[in-house]
Amino acid sequence: MDLKEEALEIHEKAKGKLSINSKFKVKERRYLSLLYTPGVAEPCKVIAQDKSAVYKYTGKGNLVAVVTDGSAVLGLGDIGPEASLPVMEGKALLFKEFGGVDAMPICIDSKEVEDIVKTTVLISPGFGGINLEDISAPRCFEIERQLKEKLDIPVFHDDQHGTAIVVHAALINALKVVCKQIQEVKIVINGGGAAGTAVTNQLINAGAKNIIVCDKNGALLDEPSFIATHHEELASRTNPNRESGPLSQIIMGADVFIGVSKGNLVSQEMVVAMNKDAIILAMANPTPEIMPDIAKAGGARVIATGRSDFPNQVNNLLAFPGIFKGVFKCKAPQITTEMKLAAANAIASMIPGEALNEENIIPSPLNKEVVDVVANAIEETYENSNC
Amino acid sequence: MDLKEEALEIHEKAKGKLSINSKFKVKERRYLSLLYTPGVAEPCKVIAQDKSAVYKYTGKGNLVAVVTDGSAVLGLGDIGPEASLPVMEGKALLFKEFGGVDAMPICIDSKEVEDIVKTTVLISPGFGGINLEDISAPRCFEIERQLKEKLDIPVFHDDQHGTAIVVHAALINALKVVCKQIQEVKIVINGGGAAGTAVTNQLINAGAKNIIVCDKNGALLDEPSFIATHHEELASRTNPNRESGPLSQIIMGADVFIGVSKGNLVSQEMVVAMNKDAIILAMANPTPEIMPDIAKAGGARVIATGRSDFPNQVNNLLAFPGIFKGVFKCKAPQITTEMKLAAANAIASMIPGEALNEENIIPSPLNKEVVDVVANAIEETYENSNC
Repeated sequence: MDLKEEALEIHEKAKGKLSINSKFKVKERRYLSLLYTPGVAEPCKVIAQDKSAVYKYTGKGNLVAVVTDGSAVLGLGDIGPEASLPVMEGKALLFKEFGGVDAMPICIDSKEVEDIVKTTVLISPGFGGINLEDISAPRCFEIERQLKEKLDIPVFHDDQHGTAIVVHAALINALKVVCKQIQEVKIVINGGGAAGTAVTNQLINAGAKNIIVCDKNGALLDEPSFIATHHEELASRTNPNRESGPLSQIIMGADVFIGVSKGNLVSQEMVVAMNKDAIILAMANPTPEIMPDIAKAGGARVIATGRSDFPNQVNNLLAFPGIFKGVFKCKAPQITTEMKLAAANAIASMIPGEALNEENIIPSPLNKEVVDVVANAIEETYENSNC
Repeated sequence: MDLKEEALEIHEKAKGKLSINSKFKVKERRYLSLLYTPGVAEPCKVIAQDKSAVYKYTGKGNLVAVVTDGSAVLGLGDIGPEASLPVMEGKALLFKEFGGVDAMPICIDSKEVEDIVKTTVLISPGFGGINLEDISAPRCFEIERQLKEKLDIPVFHDDQHGTAIVVHAALINALKVVCKQIQEVKIVINGGGAAGTAVTNQLINAGAKNIIVCDKNGALLDEPSFIATHHEELASRTNPNRESGPLSQIIMGADVFIGVSKGNLVSQEMVVAMNKDAIILAMANPTPEIMPDIAKAGGARVIATGRSDFPNQVNNLLAFPGIFKGVFKCKAPQITTEMKLAAANAIASMIPGEALNEENIIPSPLNKEVVDVVANAIEETYENSNC
């Protein structure tokens, strides 16, 4: 049976991938009295007096809402809230299996920013964190911004920040392999959507000085006359040398290419035109921007993709379970820039110097040791910020 | 340790009563590929083509949202969404332990009917049913009405219909004990809120002809001049002999008293004034409308309460798990009047004739055989309605 058939069969047999279970067996009346009426009134009364006690007596502090509108699901696009549910269940499954974090899909039947924000705010009392998932740009930026402003629990758009963290982690180690500094390299990012924007911000926060973002019209340039509103800020923070033209031109002399858009966009010739010891992080899935063998033939030194059948799989699974495990441990009210940088460094640190080479820049997504290293980095960062 | 202390301790230790688990262990890459990308795209694509396939490939068909605004929690009143969470977790726990049904608390941070309806509708794609819980009257009526109109999944306000079903079940068997017919008895219901309204409707649907509902101002009477808007319909359907006055007067000559309001409202003298072989269903919790020994001393023949320390405990747990298990089994789009009557009869049928007596009119809430009897009754009713 091929993977597609088996995937359908396994989903049908299980009828969903999640199960909500009681932590207690209710075998005698006393348990009913303790866990339900009349005993349950006691924690209710304490929380009614002091809202923060909800973390002490309920599961709120370990529960993430995986919120989507189904508008940008995998490479499938806008398939709607029902069709997105298998992905959201999968995400919740990974939260639990890797991070020990409870997560619940919330598939919202509206594409309006106002509806998505209001619904998420209104259901937030029962959740300890919000993971936004597969919401298309540019709405995802505004939704995240408003939720961060309105909520006192962590809000994290994984397609943005999860991707940014794992790409950054891969880049940290790739740069070590080629002995270059992030401050000095020319980085070309293809894709100005959710992931491209977040990767750009993360790398600027990490010290990158020369990033050029390309979309389908070529290099983003800070010229109001032809730039989309949601690209204005991105353009103002990038392309310091005001390069213009298509990707094939911009990539000339680049040290790093990061693809977070569509597959099959980069040719061998384009890699040949890059600087010596080029780094290619081709994240498009399932077809990367360039296949590793072609990039290699063009002279690239370090190549990573999102795929499990090539070396250096860069996968968000390395980030999100540890990030929420971390903020939940320390009860941080938000996920800060410093935390995202610390998470990337923590993931990169999982490959010690002696193991580091072109084909081993990032741990396997299935390495369950990563989650605690990330969680501890988050916790430490939060505690230092409160000193 | 007393119950209150132990209840606090058990809640604090467990940090919530629910756990969201994966049905699969993700130990190898292949599982990641089947349950998450790229395999998960297959069920997504099928559902995008045919929305109803969401029941085939996800957990929607066995998942209830336990929706509240925290406005009428236990006897505690309007304690808000956070403080209601221990109760909602408890409810979800009981759904799973008794019905095998997954349930998720959704605590909404608004008291506006419009907000509660809209939020519930917008998150409904991921849920197979809605259990409204602890929402105060009269808003609960309008919220339920609108949700039933807008959604194609079952909507059930347990404080109304769950209570109505178990009270009806108790009454069926109590009437057998005293050899009276529901069509002929005078029934006085104290409380015109969510439970009182639903009990009245259920009993009328079961054939009761002479019900008088009392609230704190006495008998409801179909006189627009002094009746609250939300009581108009209730009044128009009850009190055929147009009795007026306080409960102490209305209860004279009654065969059945049903209390779904506050404790300590019925005196021994009032029971003495009832008809021979009086039935008292005193549901107020934790203090019933009259204590069983006093009712007995007043001449009542059958007495039931909501408490576990007296005979005949009438508890919603007998109804809601089986009801949702039933509608989920047959994929019924709503819970109908016929289903609610069938559920009451199913619960009553659990006490066979030879076991039936004054102190044994209803099965124990911990009797796990009830759930399937109720679920089967729901399923059968649905199938008959489609003949």
